Amino acid sequence: MAVITVLGAGVMGTALTYPIADNGNDVRLVGTHLDDDIIQSCKDQRIHPRLKRRIHDDVKPFFYHEIADAMPETEIIVLGVNSRGVHWAAEALAPYLRPGHIVMMVTKGMESENDELKILPDVLRDHLPVGIRDQIDYAAIGGPSIAGELAARNHTSVVFVSRNPNILPGLQKLFATSYYHVWSSTDLIGVEVCVALKNPIALAVGLAAGLLERQTKEKGPDVANAHMYNYAAALFAQGLAETAYIVNLMGGRPETVFSLPGAGDLYVTTQGGRNSRMGRLLGMGLPYSDAVEEMYGETIEGVDATVAIMPAIQHMIDSGKISADALPLLHTLHRILTRNAPVDFDFDTFFASLSMFNPPVTRT
Amino acid sequence: MAVITVLGAGVMGTALTYPIADNGNDVRLVGTHLDDDIIQSCKDQRIHPRLKRRIHDDVKPFFYHEIADAMPETEIIVLGVNSRGVHWAAEALAPYLRPGHIVMMVTKGMESENDELKILPDVLRDHLPVGIRDQIDYAAIGGPSIAGELAARNHTSVVFVSRNPNILPGLQKLFATSYYHVWSSTDLIGVEVCVALKNPIALAVGLAAGLLERQTKEKGPDVANAHMYNYAAALFAQGLAETAYIVNLMGGRPETVFSLPGAGDLYVTTQGGRNSRMGRLLGMGLPYSDAVEEMYGETIEGVDATVAIMPAIQHMIDSGKISADALPLLHTLHRILTRNAPVDFDFDTFFASLSMFNPPVTRT
Repeated sequence: MAVITVLGAGVMGTALTYPIADNGNDVRLVGTHLDDDIIQSCKDQRIHPRLKRRIHDDVKPFFYHEIADAMPETEIIVLGVNSRGVHWAAEALAPYLRPGHIVMMVTKGMESENDELKILPDVLRDHLPVGIRDQIDYAAIGGPSIAGELAARNHTSVVFVSRNPNILPGLQKLFATSYYHVWSSTDLIGVEVCVALKNPIALAVGLAAGLLERQTKEKGPDVANAHMYNYAAALFAQGLAETAYIVNLMGGRPETVFSLPGAGDLYVTTQGGRNSRMGRLLGMGLPYSDAVEEMYGETIEGVDATVAIMPAIQHMIDSGKISADALPLLHTLHRILTRNAPVDFDFDTFFASLSMFNPPVTRT
Repeated sequence: MAVITVLGAGVMGTALTYPIADNGNDVRLVGTHLDDDIIQSCKDQRIHPRLKRRIHDDVKPFFYHEIADAMPETEIIVLGVNSRGVHWAAEALAPYLRPGHIVMMVTKGMESENDELKILPDVLRDHLPVGIRDQIDYAAIGGPSIAGELAARNHTSVVFVSRNPNILPGLQKLFATSYYHVWSSTDLIGVEVCVALKNPIALAVGLAAGLLERQTKEKGPDVANAHMYNYAAALFAQGLAETAYIVNLMGGRPETVFSLPGAGDLYVTTQGGRNSRMGRLLGMGLPYSDAVEEMYGETIEGVDATVAIMPAIQHMIDSGKISADALPLLHTLHRILTRNAPVDFDFDTFFASLSMFNPPVTRT
């Protein structure tokens, strides 16, 4: 058993405290400076207001200003801040990091940095002080894991990933329970690219439901109530193909894309949530600027991720590193989100990155 | 343009007549002996009763007893019978086949034959007369294609597949429209395995919704209404892994599994339909024998496919050709469907066929 401190009391960081506390670890939940109301509720009533559930009896909640009380003896730090908070987290953690610490990132994604794509564990590392950044290990979690379901102890299957294979069996032992199933892999790149892209792709898949509503409104209901799942499925498959293309480009492994971290997590992400809702609004014909107002105050990770990665993608296309034809879904989505472009995919440009598929014939 | 005769007036065969008739082909729709009521309705009112939609103005419907009138000048035969009808179709077509004909199979799946798995195009071929079976070409269609959506001319993206690459561009030209997007591939094995397995896997994914209902009934609603999408997603990902395992075993290509024919079609198939409904009933705790009565008279393709392929799989395990550990989803599903076994997956046995994943640690 170990002393494990979770920084960030959002739904995912907090959900992870259930299996690790069930395993008898000493679990400390430290809110960020934005989580004071959550921590207050955890301290006063033992209720997490966003998970809408009692926190585990053995978890100790701390305000951010109490972080110095939580960190002593900590062996593993679980980083549960959102993707915008990684730079902040590097500063927040720096004073407490010691050689041998493991930082386990729940925070997921990629950023454009100096016209290159960079996975968030590397962003975190590069923002830590030079003296410590190479003295600690970095790990991350991939796979379909809706926080509320894990907190309910419903079966959840994930992959722990680190460039250092030696730390993985220990982490598996500390975290895995009868309901939290943990595989391990060293493909950190593959997992981080998958988790960064699942939200944009799920948003795109969600467009189909909105397009259907729009069509119904404009033309009346279809005589046989035909849906647009074929449309959504083509985006689902193209999304996986674009993910595989970027994973390959960055040196990750295709198996990651086609199993739990890619296809599995994308499946879960398309079954609802904020990205799907944004997709629906855009599919209905709202320009992005109006859709954002409709969802005022909500973080749409699919939007953030698209905006974060497309500058580097564009640079790589401009410099000839990648093919302009490989990513039509992401390009179209980027135009929808940044230029109020209408929802209009050219399906016949899809799957150009899959060598085994011959493209559609040119129609006359 | 070509003369194209569709044999089998079910929803999928009939749906295909829309793009090919839109393209100006001469399209003849021949019902089987079981389709007389459908053809009667098509002749009398131009309405397909199961598609609940007008058939295309230019499609000519024929009763099965009129097949001799439909076949002259036919260049391409689209086989739209269900998977149980392939042996029958071989007999029905035999008198009319001429060298150079293309048989395009909408009928999908695999059978166990002499303890080996055999894809349906090969089953059809082997049941045709020796004189003609090697004088014609075989093709098939893979990918997410709900019939009612194609008939509504909603965007649909598929892969045409044949061992003979020379016939594919011509087929693409005859079938593709502004809403029917057609890639091509020579991986006939990969596509057929994907379409055979998507129904069993979708049935398994559907179990999660039933399990949730059962849990809610037994324990009351979860305090935060947690769903079981993580559960479903693990089955989705494991289903793809088992598909990839069998595709690889039979000499197909993994790219097929991870794009339109595999992941894309599985996505569509999990979004509703009879397999999902059967999964829900079983997940709710009904033994298979009771669930079948609940859905009396409905063909559940996921059940048929599981029962059709598992004898060969078991034989291959017994003879050491494949690993007993590679297919835990299909094995558990087979026990549920044939022995009234309860729904109880051992998640920690999943992903054993993926070399990059290290398995869960043994729990104490």
